[in-house]
Amino acid sequence: MKHYQPIDSFQSPRFCGVRTFMRLPHVKTLENVDFLIVGIPFDTGGSFRIGTRFGPQAIRDVSILLRPYNPEMKINIFEHCSGVDYGDINIIPGYIEESYERIQKDMIEILKGSVIPIGMGGDHSVTLAELRAVRDVYGPVALIHFDSHSDTWDSYFEKKYNHGTPIRRAIEEGCIQMEHSIQVGMRGPLYCPGDLQDAVDMGLEVITTGDIRRIGINKTIERIRERVKDTPVFVTFDIDFLDPAYAPGTGTPEIGGFTTWEALEMVRSGLKGMNFVGFDLVEVLPTYDSGQITSFAAAGIMYEFISLIACNKAKI
Amino acid sequence: MKHYQPIDSFQSPRFCGVRTFMRLPHVKTLENVDFLIVGIPFDTGGSFRIGTRFGPQAIRDVSILLRPYNPEMKINIFEHCSGVDYGDINIIPGYIEESYERIQKDMIEILKGSVIPIGMGGDHSVTLAELRAVRDVYGPVALIHFDSHSDTWDSYFEKKYNHGTPIRRAIEEGCIQMEHSIQVGMRGPLYCPGDLQDAVDMGLEVITTGDIRRIGINKTIERIRERVKDTPVFVTFDIDFLDPAYAPGTGTPEIGGFTTWEALEMVRSGLKGMNFVGFDLVEVLPTYDSGQITSFAAAGIMYEFISLIACNKAKI
Amino acid sequence: MKHYQPIDSFQSPRFCGVRTFMRLPHVKTLENVDFLIVGIPFDTGGSFRIGTRFGPQAIRDVSILLRPYNPEMKINIFEHCSGVDYGDINIIPGYIEESYERIQKDMIEILKGSVIPIGMGGDHSVTLAELRAVRDVYGPVALIHFDSHSDTWDSYFEKKYNHGTPIRRAIEEGCIQMEHSIQVGMRGPLYCPGDLQDAVDMGLEVITTGDIRRIGINKTIERIRERVKDTPVFVTFDIDFLDPAYAPGTGTPEIGGFTTWEALEMVRSGLKGMNFVGFDLVEVLPTYDSGQITSFAAAGIMYEFISLIACNKAKI
Amino acid sequence: MKHYQPIDSFQSPRFCGVRTFMRLPHVKTLENVDFLIVGIPFDTGGSFRIGTRFGPQAIRDVSILLRPYNPEMKINIFEHCSGVDYGDINIIPGYIEESYERIQKDMIEILKGSVIPIGMGGDHSVTLAELRAVRDVYGPVALIHFDSHSDTWDSYFEKKYNHGTPIRRAIEEGCIQMEHSIQVGMRGPLYCPGDLQDAVDMGLEVITTGDIRRIGINKTIERIRERVKDTPVFVTFDIDFLDPAYAPGTGTPEIGGFTTWEALEMVRSGLKGMNFVGFDLVEVLPTYDSGQITSFAAAGIMYEFISLIACNKAKI
Amino acid sequence: MKHYQPIDSFQSPRFCGVRTFMRLPHVKTLENVDFLIVGIPFDTGGSFRIGTRFGPQAIRDVSILLRPYNPEMKINIFEHCSGVDYGDINIIPGYIEESYERIQKDMIEILKGSVIPIGMGGDHSVTLAELRAVRDVYGPVALIHFDSHSDTWDSYFEKKYNHGTPIRRAIEEGCIQMEHSIQVGMRGPLYCPGDLQDAVDMGLEVITTGDIRRIGINKTIERIRERVKDTPVFVTFDIDFLDPAYAPGTGTPEIGGFTTWEALEMVRSGLKGMNFVGFDLVEVLPTYDSGQITSFAAAGIMYEFISLIACNKAKI
Amino acid sequence: MKHYQPIDSFQSPRFCGVRTFMRLPHVKTLENVDFLIVGIPFDTGGSFRIGTRFGPQAIRDVSILLRPYNPEMKINIFEHCSGVDYGDINIIPGYIEESYERIQKDMIEILKGSVIPIGMGGDHSVTLAELRAVRDVYGPVALIHFDSHSDTWDSYFEKKYNHGTPIRRAIEEGCIQMEHSIQVGMRGPLYCPGDLQDAVDMGLEVITTGDIRRIGINKTIERIRERVKDTPVFVTFDIDFLDPAYAPGTGTPEIGGFTTWEALEMVRSGLKGMNFVGFDLVEVLPTYDSGQITSFAAAGIMYEFISLIACNKAKI
Repeated sequence: MKHYQPIDSFQSPRFCGVRTFMRLPHVKTLENVDFLIVGIPFDTGGSFRIGTRFGPQAIRDVSILLRPYNPEMKINIFEHCSGVDYGDINIIPGYIEESYERIQKDMIEILKGSVIPIGMGGDHSVTLAELRAVRDVYGPVALIHFDSHSDTWDSYFEKKYNHGTPIRRAIEEGCIQMEHSIQVGMRGPLYCPGDLQDAVDMGLEVITTGDIRRIGINKTIERIRERVKDTPVFVTFDIDFLDPAYAPGTGTPEIGGFTTWEALEMVRSGLKGMNFVGFDLVEVLPTYDSGQITSFAAAGIMYEFISLIACNKAKI
Repeated sequence: MKHYQPIDSFQSPRFCGVRTFMRLPHVKTLENVDFLIVGIPFDTGGSFRIGTRFGPQAIRDVSILLRPYNPEMKINIFEHCSGVDYGDINIIPGYIEESYERIQKDMIEILKGSVIPIGMGGDHSVTLAELRAVRDVYGPVALIHFDSHSDTWDSYFEKKYNHGTPIRRAIEEGCIQMEHSIQVGMRGPLYCPGDLQDAVDMGLEVITTGDIRRIGINKTIERIRERVKDTPVFVTFDIDFLDPAYAPGTGTPEIGGFTTWEALEMVRSGLKGMNFVGFDLVEVLPTYDSGQITSFAAAGIMYEFISLIACNKAKI
Repeated sequence: MKHYQPIDSFQSPRFCGVRTFMRLPHVKTLENVDFLIVGIPFDTGGSFRIGTRFGPQAIRDVSILLRPYNPEMKINIFEHCSGVDYGDINIIPGYIEESYERIQKDMIEILKGSVIPIGMGGDHSVTLAELRAVRDVYGPVALIHFDSHSDTWDSYFEKKYNHGTPIRRAIEEGCIQMEHSIQVGMRGPLYCPGDLQDAVDMGLEVITTGDIRRIGINKTIERIRERVKDTPVFVTFDIDFLDPAYAPGTGTPEIGGFTTWEALEMVRSGLKGMNFVGFDLVEVLPTYDSGQITSFAAAGIMYEFISLIACNKAKI
Repeated sequence: MKHYQPIDSFQSPRFCGVRTFMRLPHVKTLENVDFLIVGIPFDTGGSFRIGTRFGPQAIRDVSILLRPYNPEMKINIFEHCSGVDYGDINIIPGYIEESYERIQKDMIEILKGSVIPIGMGGDHSVTLAELRAVRDVYGPVALIHFDSHSDTWDSYFEKKYNHGTPIRRAIEEGCIQMEHSIQVGMRGPLYCPGDLQDAVDMGLEVITTGDIRRIGINKTIERIRERVKDTPVFVTFDIDFLDPAYAPGTGTPEIGGFTTWEALEMVRSGLKGMNFVGFDLVEVLPTYDSGQITSFAAAGIMYEFISLIACNKAKI
Repeated sequence: MKHYQPIDSFQSPRFCGVRTFMRLPHVKTLENVDFLIVGIPFDTGGSFRIGTRFGPQAIRDVSILLRPYNPEMKINIFEHCSGVDYGDINIIPGYIEESYERIQKDMIEILKGSVIPIGMGGDHSVTLAELRAVRDVYGPVALIHFDSHSDTWDSYFEKKYNHGTPIRRAIEEGCIQMEHSIQVGMRGPLYCPGDLQDAVDMGLEVITTGDIRRIGINKTIERIRERVKDTPVFVTFDIDFLDPAYAPGTGTPEIGGFTTWEALEMVRSGLKGMNFVGFDLVEVLPTYDSGQITSFAAAGIMYEFISLIACNKAKI
Repeated sequence: MKHYQPIDSFQSPRFCGVRTFMRLPHVKTLENVDFLIVGIPFDTGGSFRIGTRFGPQAIRDVSILLRPYNPEMKINIFEHCSGVDYGDINIIPGYIEESYERIQKDMIEILKGSVIPIGMGGDHSVTLAELRAVRDVYGPVALIHFDSHSDTWDSYFEKKYNHGTPIRRAIEEGCIQMEHSIQVGMRGPLYCPGDLQDAVDMGLEVITTGDIRRIGINKTIERIRERVKDTPVFVTFDIDFLDPAYAPGTGTPEIGGFTTWEALEMVRSGLKGMNFVGFDLVEVLPTYDSGQITSFAAAGIMYEFISLIACNKAKI
């Protein structure tokens, strides 16, 4: 049986060859595949600094440094699962609703193939299209949302679709099991108190950055696990969850955020063993990413997503 | 009578104060104003590198170095005309047709006030909205189009509106007097021979970069002047007319282009004394603009536009 | 009554328009104004990396992302106070004593208008001129000084005025109530033991970074509050208080510094309810500021200053 | 019959997908292929600024903007030929002689397949390995060498192999038909007069930048054509032939160089109709490449190489 | 007796003059010298991002900001010791074994002169040559190795010498007293579990980043001190021990790392009073170092090395 | 007799060692020295973008690539002359008049030693101090001034000394033989017509960029030579003479400028055989210098100055 894994970096230097995520084969197949990486280079939803269309490429560029054994999780990923770089979804720049259709269509196909997708944005508006696909295939699911913004605004300039509104839309459209969903990391100035309260009122649990600083990482992990339980879950990670010192390359940075170590802890211990239907990592914006550190952070977090999938397969 | 002119840089250092174009007053008025600078920070039409929404700010940032006397034109601008920085038009990011409406509406108001607008993009898609306004106020006008691309593609991804199609749309919509209009500077790979031939077939004169290299700048200037004559004219200048060495900060650079001196010559001598209804300068993309040189080029070309207006007022 | 507040970002995209701090009106008035933002782009006092004259512009450029409700302070700023962007003070580059006169003169006017100024440097030398103005209007005040350097050197190259000496000069000139003043965050190599001891000997309390690491943030906050009490107080924040990972864009970075979260905590909880006469934030140097993160940090800290003013007005 | 050509950019945005040169298929085949692009990311031979191992990736990243019709050559490339992105050769970083063996072996295979390779460096040391392969398959060939350096030094630090010596080595090893070979563009300071005279003494024709400035581009083109005639020819283009303003991203820039237009002219008119066995373009160093303009120049010159191949196939 | 110390920065501005480390005299002498700074600009061993040959220059460039009194260690360095900037070792780029010979030869001479060298890489491959010299002069010594990688791989591409293998080679070649040696900070993905286990099996103590996060900095310090005791010790510090937010300018960054404060603590308290034979700091790569912060971190850690030497001399 | 020349780059890689100009010995001597390079890192006179204090370091950093034989001049420099890197003059940042005294004093000493200084700025204000020294030693001399600005403004903010006024001051202070002096390259917007006319009225010949474009480089060279004849001459070269595409790293860039080839031609042929008393090259500002190209241009022009001195010594 075909098993997809990265090129051997003891034979071929890591900087050699066409860039794919982690040097995985770039094959557009769903057969014999446990997970796939797929770029969604759509950034028309961005409200401030822009250019996340180049996010997938930038993440691929540094992901070639990743190695297959995860010492914190104690797992050799490709002993337990097979994965590919599926390429990018052909969105239409400048046209959000048409792009949503394309994303949704491709994601439905992937999900129906029983493959776990790990999407790379693009801005956070793409998550709505992914969640629509998830709903169409699995019905409403739990959502774990790491971000500095709740993205539950109703509209900007009277427009419903952009990177500030996807979570509200997803809720309205029945994609989310509210009682098992949670938002983690909100911080920074708001337009009004309702900006966060709305999320709570709609039924989400919200743990702000201030909360996490007060209760600690371990307690936060507990609350995530208690909330989600074994519900099928989609994980969306906005890179601005991290502090701008760790992730300068993003559209709307918020100071006072998390280190990569803290994020890795919350992902590794916070999510281990859950029943994943999909992941995404969004808002990497390379033109502001000095020294590529945002891309390294993104690739590293996606690596933990893959490790989580492998752990499930290995039943460890 | 109120006369608007820049702050005196012998009293206040040029790096002091809120940035406006050339340190002009930021007043939203049309009274006692001959020309105005207006930002149109819309970049949803961009097909490759993106972020021209920050173009107006970047141009303002360096324009503060400009001084009022133009020694090549031998004119002290503000002895002859009054101008303001009008601020930016409130476009809607991500929504091109709604943004077109807002741009068109604001431009009609300006044009009706008998003020000559100098628009700062944003991407080249904004020019269609400006030309619609010009048509609504003046009827069809001559167009002088400096660019490395003809921007007469029919559509991308079956979509009619983006930064590759505005000139074709403007022609279709009756904004342009074809027999007096001209495109200057086209170069670089195309999809097919029709890409340029279409423009010619629709009735435009096209002088490619190759043509200019063969006939020289002076002959090019002659051809522009012969074509346009004294028809009311709108001038649109895509900064990628310049070579990437002179204008790296743009969305779709084409190598083999012009120096700033050549561009200044074509603007100064090529356009002097014409019957201007408006100008724009588009496609400045600051995140790729090393050392701010693209912004300096843009500000310098806009300075010549202002000088042309002043020369007309001074009848020199 | 006129009330000054930011442009509504649901109507006008945040990247639209001439940049003012937080999109506040740029009006040179003191009437109906509770606080004002004023740039002091003077950098002749800089001893190493230089260019803080562009600091105010850079801070304005990113401050447009700030929103009016502070969820940690639980206050909607503009329900309680009115503020403007006052523009910049016309310093004279290259001439420190003449610039001091201009700064002092403008600040006296502001302070006499019963407005709380929030100055944006420029290098730290400007604080002496501000403190002279404060003294002239209020007499000696308490000083809270966040910095990695004590800035109490006597002179460089036998010159009394530069960015390493303002605090010593302010003490000598009777601007400071020593028994209520405190320096927080000193670290990094010194010329000799006296560099810090001098400050203590003159009567200041000094809490070094090493001290803070040993006693913790909460205890530090306590010591600040105990020291200052309800004395009228001027707060000066040198951005190099932050670690270079969080604030690379500054003249004399010192490793081993604070995160933005720690700084926000010290400002929010450390200063809440005090009797403020003025604030400044200095030493933002954009040409070394990768990804604009230093400017984001600066804007965010200034946002807390404004929030503190609003809390006082709201009596919360 | 299989025909390889780029993805259609009217269906899929150019920034979508895994990056290959010009969006060509990444297939490691020689069947039904007229030309192929192959990366040789070896930079151990570099004597100053270093990092051309990332050159192939950087060129691919911007090459996606290239379109298939060349208006100056009047040819639609893929109507006449088929091409692929072959990926990179697995060199061994740090080990030049072993890397030479790998490059030579892969290139022999390509050349025996009757495919014209277009190599992307890597530093100029790789050209020796390519020329060894060419010699092994075709015997000695003509060499056209565009560069600011003659690369005929004997050794550095008593070492024979690095990016300053490949042409001398290739001559010594019988790879080159001296009487039909020519070097174009030499300029900049030398160690001694012999540095250039050696090349002439060994039998090469050398046209320096000074010569070209004196005789003009057209006469230069004539001399190239007269020298090479219809001998099988390998073309090597060091990007530092261009001026640093046009190609900052390279290891040893020399001021006073050529514009991209001049280079395009020399390649298009200078080489048209020749009997090509292979091409390379070397010394693109992305970490010094502000605004990606060096990569754009490189991709644009490689595009002309492909056009030349297509013209030969089309017999135009 | 001659005593070497930095130029007085109260007389000469710190940005004046030819750059040497900390403005120390650049004298190639071993007489009356306690420590010396020596650059080893060799980067042929780098497996990914490359260019550490410019590391020594970059560190010197910012080290000029360092002042002579260390307030945390409470020592005025040059009251107790004399030091020089010895310049760089003339390695041969592209030739690792010959470069090893040159480094080893120069280091033996230094060590025989009873001077403590502080080497500046260059990539980590240089440490093998240093350890060979140390062994030749002192016999096997203890090694303290701060790094995110254990650098005990056996080979890459069947080659024994590069920046991933020096520690294994040094062990094999009898340079290290295993029972007193320790590796600190390992983290990030591996090829297989053996990558770390090998180091342990060979007899090293290994404290991973995960371990440190669990046991704390103080306990880590204890374990280092217990391990090394008073054995003669060589300290090697790979700058990627720090998190990429603190040290973006390095070849193979690993997220989830340490702050500069944590590193300073481990160096100051962890190493104080040990019996040092030499130090190095490697892998600073300036082309990826936004805002020079990596160089500042490197200079600051080297400053602590010097302070440790001074404390030993002062017996404090 | 001692003869100073660069380190041999066939023995020591060019990137090795403490940076001095062209790898010349850093010796503070005037004996057996024909020319010396001296940094004047003073930038308090800058009116816009600032930081030329780091200019000398940046030029040194890339000058290490220069080789000793000039093929255009056909001279092996160090066969005919001896030169050193003299280090930098200890100016006082922030204090222009005191800095002038220090520069003047050091330059007098150099000139009295019969050594030809080549100064590296710093901003253009330093030239006044150099010219004062020249006058004190030689009496008034001819001045050749390459620049885009005439620097003959009377004052800014009522201050006489800054980088816009040195030439007027030098004229007023009797440093210049007006009838043999010439300004070359002026362009860009002015405050008023007098800005250039003043220079002419005071007796200087002024050739603007527009003039040069009209009369050509050769005629410009003739006019320079006719003007200066064999008068003792000081040459001052402001790097903004070059176009911003060639020299982005400068304080007040003016578009429409010269290429490096044009500049080299004007220096080589325009100045050969003249009776030089000194040179300077000013206004290199590294923080805006993408890819170091401004520094390369500066080093290359300084290399021609040295070649001119060598030609005079060699009487060729």
